[in-house]
Amino acid sequence: MVSRAITLVESNAPAHRPLAREILRRIGERPGFAHRVGISGVPGAGKSTFIEALGNHLCDAGRKVAVLAVDPSSSLTRGSILGDKTRMETLSRRDECFIRPSPSGGALGGVTRKTRETIAVCEAAGFDAVLIETVGVGQSEIAVRAMVDCFLLILIAGAGDELQGMKKGIFEIADILLVNKADGENKIRAGATRLEFERVMHYLSPATEGWKPPVLAASSVDRTGIAEVWRAVDKYFAHVEADGDFDRRRREQAISWWQALVEQELRVRFLSDPHVAGLSARLEREILSGQLAPSLAAEELLGGVGLPPL
Amino acid sequence: MVSRAITLVESNAPAHRPLAREILRRIGERPGFAHRVGISGVPGAGKSTFIEALGNHLCDAGRKVAVLAVDPSSSLTRGSILGDKTRMETLSRRDECFIRPSPSGGALGGVTRKTRETIAVCEAAGFDAVLIETVGVGQSEIAVRAMVDCFLLILIAGAGDELQGMKKGIFEIADILLVNKADGENKIRAGATRLEFERVMHYLSPATEGWKPPVLAASSVDRTGIAEVWRAVDKYFAHVEADGDFDRRRREQAISWWQALVEQELRVRFLSDPHVAGLSARLEREILSGQLAPSLAAEELLGGVGLPPL
Repeated sequence: MVSRAITLVESNAPAHRPLAREILRRIGERPGFAHRVGISGVPGAGKSTFIEALGNHLCDAGRKVAVLAVDPSSSLTRGSILGDKTRMETLSRRDECFIRPSPSGGALGGVTRKTRETIAVCEAAGFDAVLIETVGVGQSEIAVRAMVDCFLLILIAGAGDELQGMKKGIFEIADILLVNKADGENKIRAGATRLEFERVMHYLSPATEGWKPPVLAASSVDRTGIAEVWRAVDKYFAHVEADGDFDRRRREQAISWWQALVEQELRVRFLSDPHVAGLSARLEREILSGQLAPSLAAEELLGGVGLPPL
Repeated sequence: MVSRAITLVESNAPAHRPLAREILRRIGERPGFAHRVGISGVPGAGKSTFIEALGNHLCDAGRKVAVLAVDPSSSLTRGSILGDKTRMETLSRRDECFIRPSPSGGALGGVTRKTRETIAVCEAAGFDAVLIETVGVGQSEIAVRAMVDCFLLILIAGAGDELQGMKKGIFEIADILLVNKADGENKIRAGATRLEFERVMHYLSPATEGWKPPVLAASSVDRTGIAEVWRAVDKYFAHVEADGDFDRRRREQAISWWQALVEQELRVRFLSDPHVAGLSARLEREILSGQLAPSLAAEELLGGVGLPPL
C-alpha cells in the first residue's frame, strides 16, 4: 500500500497525476506525524550499517521506521546508496520497517521533490521515524536539511584529510555528529576524533538555535552507542518542540519549498518561449564575453516579452 | 566623476535609468580590471582600521584603491559600517583612494545589486583594488562572496565564544583568514588563535579549489603584517589566474547573477497580478495549516493564470 502510493506520487507519468493529487489531498487532511531525520556521511563512513543498527533498535522499541534515500546522481555517488536493499538485510525483513531505495535518475530538483512527497506519504501511513539517507559529497545535504527536522552527520575516525571530500558547510547543518566504527583497534582513535570534533564544533554556530550539537561515538558492529544516538535525537526533539522551533521550521520549510517550486516553474515556462530562449542564448554569450552587464541583460530579457520594464 | 556615475547606477529614480544604462553599456565596452576583495569580520574585529592600514599600504605602493560597503540592514548592524568616513581619516584624504559608504536602506537584493554595478564602475574608472567591506553577522557575506574574487575574513584573538555571533558557514567561504589586533598584550593570544584556526581550517573544504586558506596575524596599530596580507592576496590571484579559476568564477558569477535577477523579477511580476496575489495568500494559509501539500499549492497557483499545468 505505502509502496504503491509512493510509486504514484513519485511518478512522472501524466496519467498518474490525478491519483497522486488525490493521495496528497487526503494526506493533507490526515497528515500523521514522524520524526524526520536526515543522515549523511562520506562514502565509507558506514551509513547503511549504522542505519540498519539504528532501525533495528527502533523497531525493537516498538517504532515503525521508514528509510528513504536521496541520491543526487549516480555519477557523483562513489559508494552506492541503498542501491541494494540486501545491504540492510536484517532490517528489510522486518514488517515494522519500510525501505525505499533512491528514485532512479532525474535532476536534484526532481529527486528532492519526490522525496518530500514520499516523506509525507510515510508519515500519513503511520511511520513514526523517517530516516533519509544521503551521501556527504554532493549538493544533496542542503536539500535534505530543508526537508527534515534533525540532521545527523556520520564521521569516521581519523578525520583530517579523509574528510576533505565532504561538502563545504556540512558540519554547520548538523544537529548531531556521530563518529562511527568505534570498535576494535579503531576505538581509541574514534575517541580522539570525537574530542577533536567537539573542539571544531565550538567554532561553528549551531544549525538549530540554542542546541549545541553533541558529538557521539558508536559501533554498528558491536551495537554500542546506538541507543545513545536515538536518545540524543529524542532530546533534540524535546528541545525544538518545547521552544516552538519545530513548528516554525516545518512551516518555513513548507512555504520556501512552495516558493521554490513556483519560481523554478515560472523560469522554465518563461524560457520555453522560443523568442525568449533565443534572446536568452544571445544575452548569455554577451555576458560571458564581458560586453553586457548582468542587470542590463535581465532588463532586456524581461522587456522582450511585453512585460513592464524592470 | 566616479562618484556621480555611482550615484546614477545606484539610483532608484526612473529618470536616472537611461543614463545609468548608458554608463553600464560603456563599461561593458571598456570594463577595466581590479582585484575584487571582500573583507568581513564581527563588529569589533577592527575592519575599518585594518582597511585603512591596508588602503594606505596599497596607495603607497602606487595602487588606486576603492572601498565600498555592504550593510544588509542597519538594525542588524551592531557596529556601524563605514557609517562615518572619518573613521578612515588618513585614507579618505588620499586622491588615489575612493571611499563609498553603504547605500542607505533597502532590501539585501537591492543593496547587493547596486554594489555589483558600483564595483563595475570603479573598475572601469581605473581602480585596481576594490575592497568590499561587510559585517560578519548578517546574510551579506554569501552575497558578497558571489561578487568578489577573494574573500578575507578578519578574526579577533581569543576566538571561541566571542565568535558565536558569526554567521554560519563564514569560515568556509574565506580564502584568507586574518587575526587582527595582534599587538601589545594581545600578541601572544593572537598567535595562539592563529594556530587554533589553522587547525579548524584543516577540517573545511577550501572555498577555492586547490587553495589552502592561510591564517595570518596583523596589527593595524603597529602596522605589522599588513604587507603580508596583500602578498597573500597577490599569491591567491596568481594561483586562480594560472589555473583558470579566476575567469571561470567571474563568468559563473555574472551568469548566476543574471539568472537570479530574472527569476526574482518573474516572481515579483507574477505575484503582482491581483488574482495571483489573492490566490497566493489563500494557498499560503492552507500550507501553513498543514492542509495543503506545497507541490499541490504550486500547481494550483501556476494553473490559475492560464499557463500549462505543472
